[in-house]
Amino acid sequence: MNHKNETILLAHGSGGKVMYELIHDIIAPATGMKVFNDSATIDLGAFEGHTIAFTTDSYVVSPIFFPGGDIGKLAVFGTVNDLAMVGAEPRCLSTGFIIEEGFPISDFIKVLESIREASEEAGVRIVTGDTKVVNKGKGDGIFINTSGIGLVREGINISPSNIKIDDRIIVSGTIGNHGVAVMAERNGLSFSPPVVSDTRPLNGILAKILDRYGTEIHALRDPTRGGLATTLKEMAIESSLCIEIYEEALPVNPQVAGACEILGIDPLYVANEGIFVAFVNGNVAESIIDILHGHPYGRDARIIGKVLDTPSEKVLLRTRLGGTRLVEMLPGEQLPRIC
Amino acid sequence: MNHKNETILLAHGSGGKVMYELIHDIIAPATGMKVFNDSATIDLGAFEGHTIAFTTDSYVVSPIFFPGGDIGKLAVFGTVNDLAMVGAEPRCLSTGFIIEEGFPISDFIKVLESIREASEEAGVRIVTGDTKVVNKGKGDGIFINTSGIGLVREGINISPSNIKIDDRIIVSGTIGNHGVAVMAERNGLSFSPPVVSDTRPLNGILAKILDRYGTEIHALRDPTRGGLATTLKEMAIESSLCIEIYEEALPVNPQVAGACEILGIDPLYVANEGIFVAFVNGNVAESIIDILHGHPYGRDARIIGKVLDTPSEKVLLRTRLGGTRLVEMLPGEQLPRIC
Repeated sequence: MNHKNETILLAHGSGGKVMYELIHDIIAPATGMKVFNDSATIDLGAFEGHTIAFTTDSYVVSPIFFPGGDIGKLAVFGTVNDLAMVGAEPRCLSTGFIIEEGFPISDFIKVLESIREASEEAGVRIVTGDTKVVNKGKGDGIFINTSGIGLVREGINISPSNIKIDDRIIVSGTIGNHGVAVMAERNGLSFSPPVVSDTRPLNGILAKILDRYGTEIHALRDPTRGGLATTLKEMAIESSLCIEIYEEALPVNPQVAGACEILGIDPLYVANEGIFVAFVNGNVAESIIDILHGHPYGRDARIIGKVLDTPSEKVLLRTRLGGTRLVEMLPGEQLPRIC
Repeated sequence: MNHKNETILLAHGSGGKVMYELIHDIIAPATGMKVFNDSATIDLGAFEGHTIAFTTDSYVVSPIFFPGGDIGKLAVFGTVNDLAMVGAEPRCLSTGFIIEEGFPISDFIKVLESIREASEEAGVRIVTGDTKVVNKGKGDGIFINTSGIGLVREGINISPSNIKIDDRIIVSGTIGNHGVAVMAERNGLSFSPPVVSDTRPLNGILAKILDRYGTEIHALRDPTRGGLATTLKEMAIESSLCIEIYEEALPVNPQVAGACEILGIDPLYVANEGIFVAFVNGNVAESIIDILHGHPYGRDARIIGKVLDTPSEKVLLRTRLGGTRLVEMLPGEQLPRIC
């Protein structure tokens, strides 16, 4: 049966025969998943750590296809990365689709194939799922929720409350790529060379540094919505310490810097999908940078600042001109539906 | 700060300051949840079984408030029930909100309070969450994804492939209540006494029979979208056996039967949210019924049929008049967005 020229119908979410066929004829073959029960059972037999990580994210990015990625990749990698940020090895994901009536099945298949590729790259299995269909005009193509389970490494303690004075702050790559790539696609802008999203999984690169320096890595976070600025401000609040960063150390791709200048936005507030911020013991910061530079996703890693005692809960930006500016959270909305 | 007369803005999904305030000022107080990290870490220390259950569902019910429940209760109990159907004790849930710009914050608070009450009733903790906002006209008020983790009891094997010839089929309550209640609300119909949704958690009542007869209970499922008919047909296919049910044994509330007659729909195809179907060893079927009758959610439990060898993958309905009719899955769509 060829569904490629068809569109999603309300009946595809009925729970009945048409939904059964969608799952068996489209979702299962495109993703390579076996058809699953409503609940998956997962054997943690070889797992001695007793602590699992659990996360959820819904993805509503618009447009769903953009340079460097699409909503399927984003949904897999975004959730994988949230698990990685608490020091967990991501294992299983769920996928929940909310599809608008009239959505082309050919686009759905592209998204499903992208989910398969992404889960293979990240080394996770999709084990359970759900499909709902809403009336035309009550959704926007497709929204995807992915939730995930990971196994937390033993002997590590990754949390903003674990940040210490004199910790060095590392960012694993250039900032602002994802937000600028989506915004460019949305507004028909083009750059040469093009700006592509950094949508990618961070569990592999993190494993390299956690395996070696697990106890020296105090906190991790991926600066997605709200950008690096908002993430750092949250971490200053949660640690009750002061974060000092150096403008000249911030890695920004020149096309992204140019686009931000034209558009009057600050790359510190633009969303990322494939970088992390790490707060690490100053003694090992340079060694960690060396490891990161040896991984394709860490070539632009930099030490961007350090942790001070006071002023508590503040983020200070030391500017290129020698001044200091307070960094606050993103105040309003800059780029809606960036992820 | 009083947000009660306000509506959701795109900035509430920005990842920045306005979202931070929504989480701290609205979501945390209304739900009693602590404000969480992107990923929760869950200690399974006391858990010796090694097998967890994992499930996901998105809820897009329209309208979001209906007799007997609302989208918040549905989101908690629906996911709790999916975990219970594989013999797991539900433990943790995630909540992912996709909110349409302009949605009243007062309604959001009602839904959050409902989530809190429901999770207390079901004995689960909400441990992680996510909030996205989509532009006005690109959603429909609020959609909620809940994913859940449970711990599978040791020594049981609940699966359609475990269904055996001569198993008795038990349904735990009257069928069709949820679908008719939502449809009535949607269409401004009223019944006296009113038909209310059966939205409720099934883990407590199931624990009663699993604790006593765990190994005699071969398969479980909650007949939601597609109704009891679709669920039985799926189980006939998955077990490669034949399911025989008796029309006169099917428990249907008289108001629901009347509504279905007027509307020309068959209660066998109407969605339920608070009943389960169990395939059990014939020797203990009556004892299980006795236990169910002692629980408030099982007063209308009945043996509705049994399992035969052939014709394989078929569901046979023995009618009141002595005839036999083949029961198929719900063919098209009957009541869109029922859950």
